[in-house]
Amino acid sequence: MKVKIKNKTKNIRTVWMEKNIIKMIDQRKLPFQLKFFNAKNYNDVAFVIKNMVVRGAPSIGATAVYGIAQAVMQKKNIKNAAKILRKTRPTAHDLFYAIDYMLNEIRSGNDAKTSAERYVEKLVNECKKIGIYGEKLIKNNYKILTHCNAGALATVDYGTALAPIRFAHYNKKKIFVFVDETRPRLQGMLTSWELLNEGIKHRVIADNAAGYFMRQKMIDMVIVGADRIAKNGDFANKIGTYEKAILAKENSIPFYVAAPVSTFDFGLKNGDEIRIEERKEDEVLCIKGKRVAPEKAKAFNPAFDITPKKNVTGYITERGIIRSGEIKKLKSV
Amino acid sequence: MKVKIKNKTKNIRTVWMEKNIIKMIDQRKLPFQLKFFNAKNYNDVAFVIKNMVVRGAPSIGATAVYGIAQAVMQKKNIKNAAKILRKTRPTAHDLFYAIDYMLNEIRSGNDAKTSAERYVEKLVNECKKIGIYGEKLIKNNYKILTHCNAGALATVDYGTALAPIRFAHYNKKKIFVFVDETRPRLQGMLTSWELLNEGIKHRVIADNAAGYFMRQKMIDMVIVGADRIAKNGDFANKIGTYEKAILAKENSIPFYVAAPVSTFDFGLKNGDEIRIEERKEDEVLCIKGKRVAPEKAKAFNPAFDITPKKNVTGYITERGIIRSGEIKKLKSV
Repeated sequence: MKVKIKNKTKNIRTVWMEKNIIKMIDQRKLPFQLKFFNAKNYNDVAFVIKNMVVRGAPSIGATAVYGIAQAVMQKKNIKNAAKILRKTRPTAHDLFYAIDYMLNEIRSGNDAKTSAERYVEKLVNECKKIGIYGEKLIKNNYKILTHCNAGALATVDYGTALAPIRFAHYNKKKIFVFVDETRPRLQGMLTSWELLNEGIKHRVIADNAAGYFMRQKMIDMVIVGADRIAKNGDFANKIGTYEKAILAKENSIPFYVAAPVSTFDFGLKNGDEIRIEERKEDEVLCIKGKRVAPEKAKAFNPAFDITPKKNVTGYITERGIIRSGEIKKLKSV
Repeated sequence: MKVKIKNKTKNIRTVWMEKNIIKMIDQRKLPFQLKFFNAKNYNDVAFVIKNMVVRGAPSIGATAVYGIAQAVMQKKNIKNAAKILRKTRPTAHDLFYAIDYMLNEIRSGNDAKTSAERYVEKLVNECKKIGIYGEKLIKNNYKILTHCNAGALATVDYGTALAPIRFAHYNKKKIFVFVDETRPRLQGMLTSWELLNEGIKHRVIADNAAGYFMRQKMIDMVIVGADRIAKNGDFANKIGTYEKAILAKENSIPFYVAAPVSTFDFGLKNGDEIRIEERKEDEVLCIKGKRVAPEKAKAFNPAFDITPKKNVTGYITERGIIRSGEIKKLKSV
């Protein structure tokens, strides 16, 4: 992704490995400071996932494969590393998929570092293809709503929801992005940061305002990412995604989910089987460390919600645009 | 409303007049500090309305009638006072209704202070009746969602949306309130503050989470306030209200609007004729004075949205529960 470092535009990734150190953009410091975090062992890796130094299902998966490769290189107990990494965050399918992939590669006698890099290259390539396929859905002068950050920060490079937007911009289409701020953690600010770096026109809006702009016919399409997609097409994504999907339906606006095929969990019949992470109340009661609620107030803080398949126009994957009825085909390849 | 001052529960109002000083709770300091603001002339009154020291359509109306009465008592130019007050905030009908009422009273030779107090007593009495009528809609063990603050702070006493909730609680019904935090200005924290003072069980949620809880069948009804209601039943209320209405419809949850009859604007055919206030970008880009968006990011910040009448189950007024087809009857009385 393009990043401005000291007035120079560089092309970097969200997470990568140098020797046996896992390096990553510290997303807790964005959008104000570009700082990097070095994860030196699997406890560090568990820390960065749990504390959202790295976030977004595919970036979490990439960090986990590097984490397992690092544990192998450091001759650590791999079973233990896998166990600790599995406990960090429960909703994203990629984390578990990534760990299983690495354990399988190791069992097959493959070099762990090479396997990890292959996983990450595959992911980056998938996002690129999501961009190329998804771009075709975006017409000139389109105004697109996105929720949370399904950008390069969430997927190592390109992004899922942001990949089609990036490619539309590279192909000189005139586009405009409405960016939901995405309370409680305000990941919309990360999306804004990525779009500023790319020079893509956009405005941040309160999550409450998306419906208003839809009703004003100012939004032509919605593209969001996904943390886990059940085999029927129901999917989990950042809290608030369901609200946007229902509002898009009400206003006859196409609603697309951009995700690599690895996000599909064929072991789950439908969305009801997806476990929703409940995060700390303080994410709602405080903002950037500052209390905004009355002293004795309490909160509920589900981090994700489930959007039923019937509200999805299509899934933008590295194999093209898929309708919910076609998901079973993905498994057979 | 009940307020805890130094561990004692007192019953106070949001705004009142002592001699020729208009006193009010400074809502900018809530929910952390209970401070009072003294408005000493009509410029102060314009300041408190514009800067949301006082907020909520009916409380703004009450402040305006006191403001005009004060100008009369201070022998100021009434036309000028009215002109300046009219320019403060454009969406709430009550402000204009209140000023017109006072000018008419003065023209009729009535004592301005007495007329102002009559206006406020009428308002408080209307909210009380909204509470008594609306309470009947709330069954034991109901979980109710509310958006923004349509509480005593917004209406001098009792509230509109919060009045039925207060009376259900007074009548010993077991209830639970989901409080939307209501970005960008977080008026949900004011609602939480009122509910804490009353001892009513509730939790604050991110605006993004309301749909999730509706889909989980954890919400039995929605009650919101209104800033202006067109004669067909379309209404303006805090940004995000439209989103909750559509989500309520999707999940077959009754959606009620609580407002005194003075909120109906019979001069407006429908919601498209209601002017929406666009507020400063910084309300979105900063939270409590702290920047949360990237340095160069921009925002859109509509303060209200329009919810079509078809999404409203009923209007809770001081004359009972009204359906949209019955609104015309209100005018004839």
